Amino acid sequence: MSVVAQLALFPLDKGGSGLSAYVARVVEVVRQSGLPHVLGPMGTSLEGDFDAVMDVVSRCFAAMSGDCDRVYMTLAVDYRAGRSGGLASKIASVQAALEERI
Amino acid sequence: MSVVAQLALFPLDKGGSGLSAYVARVVEVVRQSGLPHVLGPMGTSLEGDFDAVMDVVSRCFAAMSGDCDRVYMTLAVDYRAGRSGGLASKIASVQAALEERI
Amino acid sequence: MSVVAQLALFPLDKGGSGLSAYVARVVEVVRQSGLPHVLGPMGTSLEGDFDAVMDVVSRCFAAMSGDCDRVYMTLAVDYRAGRSGGLASKIASVQAALEERI
Amino acid sequence: MSVVAQLALFPLDKGGSGLSAYVARVVEVVRQSGLPHVLGPMGTSLEGDFDAVMDVVSRCFAAMSGDCDRVYMTLAVDYRAGRSGGLASKIASVQAALEERI
Repeated sequence: MSVVAQLALFPLDKGGSGLSAYVARVVEVVRQSGLPHVLGPMGTSLEGDFDAVMDVVSRCFAAMSGDCDRVYMTLAVDYRAGRSGGLASKIASVQAALEERI
Repeated sequence: MSVVAQLALFPLDKGGSGLSAYVARVVEVVRQSGLPHVLGPMGTSLEGDFDAVMDVVSRCFAAMSGDCDRVYMTLAVDYRAGRSGGLASKIASVQAALEERI
Repeated sequence: MSVVAQLALFPLDKGGSGLSAYVARVVEVVRQSGLPHVLGPMGTSLEGDFDAVMDVVSRCFAAMSGDCDRVYMTLAVDYRAGRSGGLASKIASVQAALEERI
Repeated sequence: MSVVAQLALFPLDKGGSGLSAYVARVVEVVRQSGLPHVLGPMGTSLEGDFDAVMDVVSRCFAAMSGDCDRVYMTLAVDYRAGRSGGLASKIASVQAALEERI
């Protein structure tokens, strides 16, 4: 049951600048999972079996809560039965639809 | 490591009305978990250990993906070290701050 | 075109505690708008015409960005044609569906 | 007051497949605004003055609610005082932080 997800995860107790070092922890955990992923301006998108994605999310959270006293996380998940490769195909479908509009 | 979370979870392939029966599945799973929770207009808030919350979220998702071909989920998590009872105390703190403003 | 929305809005540069005073600004702006609203553990839900809601959101944001150097906001909007009173009816419908399950 | 935002906007009453044609409407409105933007798997990110971004979001919503009876929208906004070019620099900063970790 493959899903496409997007994770945003950051500390609230480390000031408003220099957050990229914390976000890098998240990306590092996602990378090490081996799941396909894309880094975006507002979060990291990844794709995989629902349980595998949730496991990665939990490890990302642990990488933050270890030394951060306040952490905020948002996760969005899109499941479509029978879809795989959605990380790329979702964008490609929209781009194809855009070209049909012209 | 207690967190306050909010879960919104619904099918995209069942039409735009009658979604409350699907949302009720989510609330049922949350109820059965025994975790403190509050039903809101835009999602269900719950509180518990991070792993316990993620386990409930996974069971909610499974309760939807079983017979829905497209499912969308958003989850927000707020972790604050040492806090418990945040489901009630977060609202109480804001209400206290509002009274100080007057 | 009435919508139900939920707004979460807080500074990232003020430390991880004492955020309720900032959240209280948001609730104050929402209150003064006169729109129906409900304070929740993870955000403030409100209901009104889409443009009226967006106007309130903009005023809430301005109340934060004036003296905060980093601000994070999430907004969720649910529009259903012909619905009014959704702030209460959405919860009531789920509760009714829960009772039917028993 | 430049912000980086991410918008996800889709109908709930049009079935779980073929949503890309609806998402394309959103991207089209964002394109026509002239604001810098990036299409992602879980939403469209854009950057601009807060009011300009909110105006684009409103036009995107109108492009959907015209012929959709149920619409769901999530918007995330990240404001950092004095930042411009954040759409690219946020990713670049994380990538730089990742390289420092190695």
